[in-house]
Amino acid sequence: MKAAIVGIGLIGGSFALALKKYGICDEIIGVDKSEHNRNTALERGLVDRVAPLEEAIAGADLVVLATPVDTIPLLALKVLNKVTNQVVMDMGSTKAELCEVIRLHPSRGQFVATHPMWGTEYSGPEAAVKDAFTGRTVVICDHEQSNPEALRLVEDIYKKIGMPIKYMTSEEQDLHAAYVSHISHITSFALALTVLEKEREEEHIFDLAAAGFESTVRLAKSSPRTWVPILLQNKYNVLDVLREHIHQLQIFRRMLEKDDTKGLIAAMEKANTIKRILK
Amino acid sequence: MKAAIVGIGLIGGSFALALKKYGICDEIIGVDKSEHNRNTALERGLVDRVAPLEEAIAGADLVVLATPVDTIPLLALKVLNKVTNQVVMDMGSTKAELCEVIRLHPSRGQFVATHPMWGTEYSGPEAAVKDAFTGRTVVICDHEQSNPEALRLVEDIYKKIGMPIKYMTSEEQDLHAAYVSHISHITSFALALTVLEKEREEEHIFDLAAAGFESTVRLAKSSPRTWVPILLQNKYNVLDVLREHIHQLQIFRRMLEKDDTKGLIAAMEKANTIKRILK
Repeated sequence: MKAAIVGIGLIGGSFALALKKYGICDEIIGVDKSEHNRNTALERGLVDRVAPLEEAIAGADLVVLATPVDTIPLLALKVLNKVTNQVVMDMGSTKAELCEVIRLHPSRGQFVATHPMWGTEYSGPEAAVKDAFTGRTVVICDHEQSNPEALRLVEDIYKKIGMPIKYMTSEEQDLHAAYVSHISHITSFALALTVLEKEREEEHIFDLAAAGFESTVRLAKSSPRTWVPILLQNKYNVLDVLREHIHQLQIFRRMLEKDDTKGLIAAMEKANTIKRILK
Repeated sequence: MKAAIVGIGLIGGSFALALKKYGICDEIIGVDKSEHNRNTALERGLVDRVAPLEEAIAGADLVVLATPVDTIPLLALKVLNKVTNQVVMDMGSTKAELCEVIRLHPSRGQFVATHPMWGTEYSGPEAAVKDAFTGRTVVICDHEQSNPEALRLVEDIYKKIGMPIKYMTSEEQDLHAAYVSHISHITSFALALTVLEKEREEEHIFDLAAAGFESTVRLAKSSPRTWVPILLQNKYNVLDVLREHIHQLQIFRRMLEKDDTKGLIAAMEKANTIKRILK
């Protein structure tokens, strides 16, 4: 199978490596607006060759969209306008707008909307890694709108990579992604800003960074080019969760102000039950 | 050297293992109110024997206080009342009250106030691990109030374990610990409660947990018995940082409500500068 990957960054580049590693594709064609990205992808062996979008689609059996989420809906339409019998899939973190925009396209059945639950705080083809994705869950959205053959092709790819598949509507996926991914990023960004604002002696931040801060603030290194579009595309779900999070912090603040030991213990014990859910 | 470790939990137990591993002590005497902890510490080989506090002090050259921080000030006084020529140190996360309470004790010079910047979200002697501490910074507070010999003994121990030493006043340490450790814990607890509150379908939290949520919420597994006293002892510093953090989240909320792309990019780019400081 030959795949065209549009957007050879952290996600597209890592996916290219997985497609080769698991023997799924014998040729990967890279498409990227950035010359730097195209050159880096070639140098690092993420792709076999690069090509303009139209040429890449024509030469591929599978077209993978891995650009920032604000660009995916229009890109998906343009690609669907050009496909003959190719299967098209995306890897973005938000889905409602995309699935709405392509819903009535005559080639909708050839599209499979997917969100593999993997990422790091780094971006670009330099950040692509081997062994990404394996063991992580992938969400396939609105799968009944994909043709059975297109769906099976994409399911088989994810199964070969070793990813459990979960099926949701695009609205469900966006809601759950807000809870478990998007809000964590906002928290990390805000925590980094808090510390940068309050702590002028950077030497101390560095020295004391071991004490829990590093893991909580890791995501604050993430790229605005990736994350601003995700938050804006998922605005209403994210705002809903963000309001609840601010509310929870305000409750902590009031308990602390009042030396409410019992309240603090009860809140932490309830928070501890997250153990049940995480490993 | 013989050490008595009071409080054989995550910190005391891991420190016991380090004292043995680096050949610093040939006997570790464990002191703990909990019979379960004493038995576990013996079974797991964290201590050579257990004893009541007074007997342990009498048999030791070094007394290490590793109990929850709300118990340390009075415990420190009681231990200082009993020492002859032993050196006493604590390992707690807050220092201002402790250092204030022992300031005028005739044996103050034998006490060294330390905060090794290491921990995990687990607690109890079961959570003790080998190779804790090494490579992490330790803060020694108000070191000019310790005798040079007591100070040197404790410095040598931390150096043998491979910990860079930083000197601060107890007030400075509490302020910096609020920024880089205590606030991260509150954020994690609140984030766990947010998700537990909003997300009723636990199966989805589990499946989607890979997407950044796990690292941000890890600290929410931490024990209230450890963390309520830390937050209350460091109340004013923590409240100050918590107010700033809520403020930063409110700014994010407003930018998102207004689709303020430029503002969001600028905020994230500023947050990204945390890269300079963390590795």
